[in-house]
Amino acid sequence: MKTVALLTDFGLRDAYAGVMTGVILAGSPTSRVVDLSHGVPPQDVRMGAFTLMSAFSYFPRGTIFVCVVDPGVGTKRSILWARTAHYQFVAPDNGLISWVAQEAKFLEVRRVTEDAPHLPKVSRTFHGRDIFAPVAAGLAEGLAPALLGPEVEKIVELPFPSPRKSKGGIKGEVIAVDGFGNAITNFTKKDVGAKTLSVKERKVGKIVESYASVGIGRPCAVVGSSGFVEMSLREGNFSAEYGVYEGETVYGG
Amino acid sequence: MKTVALLTDFGLRDAYAGVMTGVILAGSPTSRVVDLSHGVPPQDVRMGAFTLMSAFSYFPRGTIFVCVVDPGVGTKRSILWARTAHYQFVAPDNGLISWVAQEAKFLEVRRVTEDAPHLPKVSRTFHGRDIFAPVAAGLAEGLAPALLGPEVEKIVELPFPSPRKSKGGIKGEVIAVDGFGNAITNFTKKDVGAKTLSVKERKVGKIVESYASVGIGRPCAVVGSSGFVEMSLREGNFSAEYGVYEGETVYGG
Amino acid sequence: MKTVALLTDFGLRDAYAGVMTGVILAGSPTSRVVDLSHGVPPQDVRMGAFTLMSAFSYFPRGTIFVCVVDPGVGTKRSILWARTAHYQFVAPDNGLISWVAQEAKFLEVRRVTEDAPHLPKVSRTFHGRDIFAPVAAGLAEGLAPALLGPEVEKIVELPFPSPRKSKGGIKGEVIAVDGFGNAITNFTKKDVGAKTLSVKERKVGKIVESYASVGIGRPCAVVGSSGFVEMSLREGNFSAEYGVYEGETVYGG
Repeated sequence: MKTVALLTDFGLRDAYAGVMTGVILAGSPTSRVVDLSHGVPPQDVRMGAFTLMSAFSYFPRGTIFVCVVDPGVGTKRSILWARTAHYQFVAPDNGLISWVAQEAKFLEVRRVTEDAPHLPKVSRTFHGRDIFAPVAAGLAEGLAPALLGPEVEKIVELPFPSPRKSKGGIKGEVIAVDGFGNAITNFTKKDVGAKTLSVKERKVGKIVESYASVGIGRPCAVVGSSGFVEMSLREGNFSAEYGVYEGETVYGG
Repeated sequence: MKTVALLTDFGLRDAYAGVMTGVILAGSPTSRVVDLSHGVPPQDVRMGAFTLMSAFSYFPRGTIFVCVVDPGVGTKRSILWARTAHYQFVAPDNGLISWVAQEAKFLEVRRVTEDAPHLPKVSRTFHGRDIFAPVAAGLAEGLAPALLGPEVEKIVELPFPSPRKSKGGIKGEVIAVDGFGNAITNFTKKDVGAKTLSVKERKVGKIVESYASVGIGRPCAVVGSSGFVEMSLREGNFSAEYGVYEGETVYGG
Repeated sequence: MKTVALLTDFGLRDAYAGVMTGVILAGSPTSRVVDLSHGVPPQDVRMGAFTLMSAFSYFPRGTIFVCVVDPGVGTKRSILWARTAHYQFVAPDNGLISWVAQEAKFLEVRRVTEDAPHLPKVSRTFHGRDIFAPVAAGLAEGLAPALLGPEVEKIVELPFPSPRKSKGGIKGEVIAVDGFGNAITNFTKKDVGAKTLSVKERKVGKIVESYASVGIGRPCAVVGSSGFVEMSLREGNFSAEYGVYEGETVYGG
């Protein structure tokens, strides 16, 4: 049984994600469709890239990821199919899958052309339903990727934000804020070492073992589940309390 | 493997949708339960009808749609089972499935009686769990629809809003606003032609090819994925920016 | 096919729930993963306990419930595996599964140790992914529970709030507010009988048959789907209108 995992910015208020699932199952009745997330903020390609990078390797080998954060839908932007040793990806060529390469090498990348599977009528606004889903269903049914379109050498890449040296320390940024209010930085444990983190001229502290290392309602820095250092408030919402959002500068010194 | 698709106004904060899924799987272990959407605004039958109409035909043939937007739960309102050539529907008789007939003819409609499958104890407030789900499980397991209850000739119909002629143009309305803030009108491409759309005394423009036909942050009219003309803001939220919600009058002239 | 049902406070904005699903499917490819709910308010163990208690018995026999509302993640709190006659549960030992015992007896409870399945690298903040999901996958694949860890005699129990006698009546509380704004009390139908409910010095009324027993926009008390008496506003949001939230005192007299 093939697993097809969906990552979109559609949210769950509308039926867009449900309809994509319907199209995939109509084209590949024995596939299993799983929601990785539909909660990427609308048109936030970078947050989508971060989510995918942090998640894909936990899925069964052979999973086909269908990724739709696509502000350029209806324009000339390309649609890509790519594979690593264990996974396949279908996504717009806007950087959305580019951070996968931080974790695993792309072995083959193709541009999805009009020869690839698509619904009889392709809308201008919902390629997730009309192209991405039929392509995923085709792949799940064993379609040869070579039939999707020609190989491409270069894809759009989002620059991955790396911490920089700063006077007496390091300077980085918040790359994501999760639903609990944890502010995920671009620092690894090694970047931070024994330095003290601060943000918006307030001290957050050194890396501690877990939330419980500090009192309830107190801030802390922990190595988060994505492998990056996160700033959190024990049993609270760090982002709301400190007014810290995606893109905020963080210092370690 | 039978597909059962759920459409409700339960949201995903509570476990109501999860519990319905549990009941269906308990009664039909080999079925596959898919969420079409649980994001219909509470008790908004019309929005539920629009969502179903726009979505059902993308699902695998044989799909059983279980639809619960049911402000009349616990009253004498009937529960319906209906089928088109390719799909089955279980829903309250309040108009929720009536717009399906815009796309496909109902070939058989029955009233679900107390003889139909139901849980041993039927609550007054959650027929989705206690009646709709067991009926769907029964149908998925091959129950003859004739055992659900008698055929009915007439169901509650929501009037489908059609555009009207107006001085020098046409007058319609916003039938839905999606999670991106796109305002979906009841105009087809043919209705609008080369006319200029306006709403709340502000011009939106003529129909363009795609969002990218206008500058970032600019309004546009595009033929949306449901086949109706939508008013959008490129990479923004039209509804919030223009204060335009469901029911707002739209002019084309 | 084994059913694994997830109950968490992760929400659906992030990919945490999707990643747990991926880990379970990677470890147990033929399992079916179902979302019971990811909408438990962050770190609200009591609301998680209520949700689980109200829902588990509707699922197929053999379902494995993976429950993650876990403010103590990364501390010395234990992880539990427990079974009743028909179901299995994996959860932190913080009371989350303790109200299951209101409905079904635990026949065996074990502490999940480091000998149990887990991912090669266990984070400090996401045991749902790194421990709970691999344990569930192992169980779905037939792992003997005795291999998880030793039996335990005592688990953390949340006190279940029981109504008390009050001058000329009874005194209880709101144990949950659902997404429709229904305020679920800890009164059963028998507790209330013919008494009149009131909250915040406003009368709500006696128990009626269904929402439709009162006018649109009027308050009422009904026996809800969980078996407890709920205070509702017909076609409206009782909680928002009356300013009544979890923990509010309710009188019957």
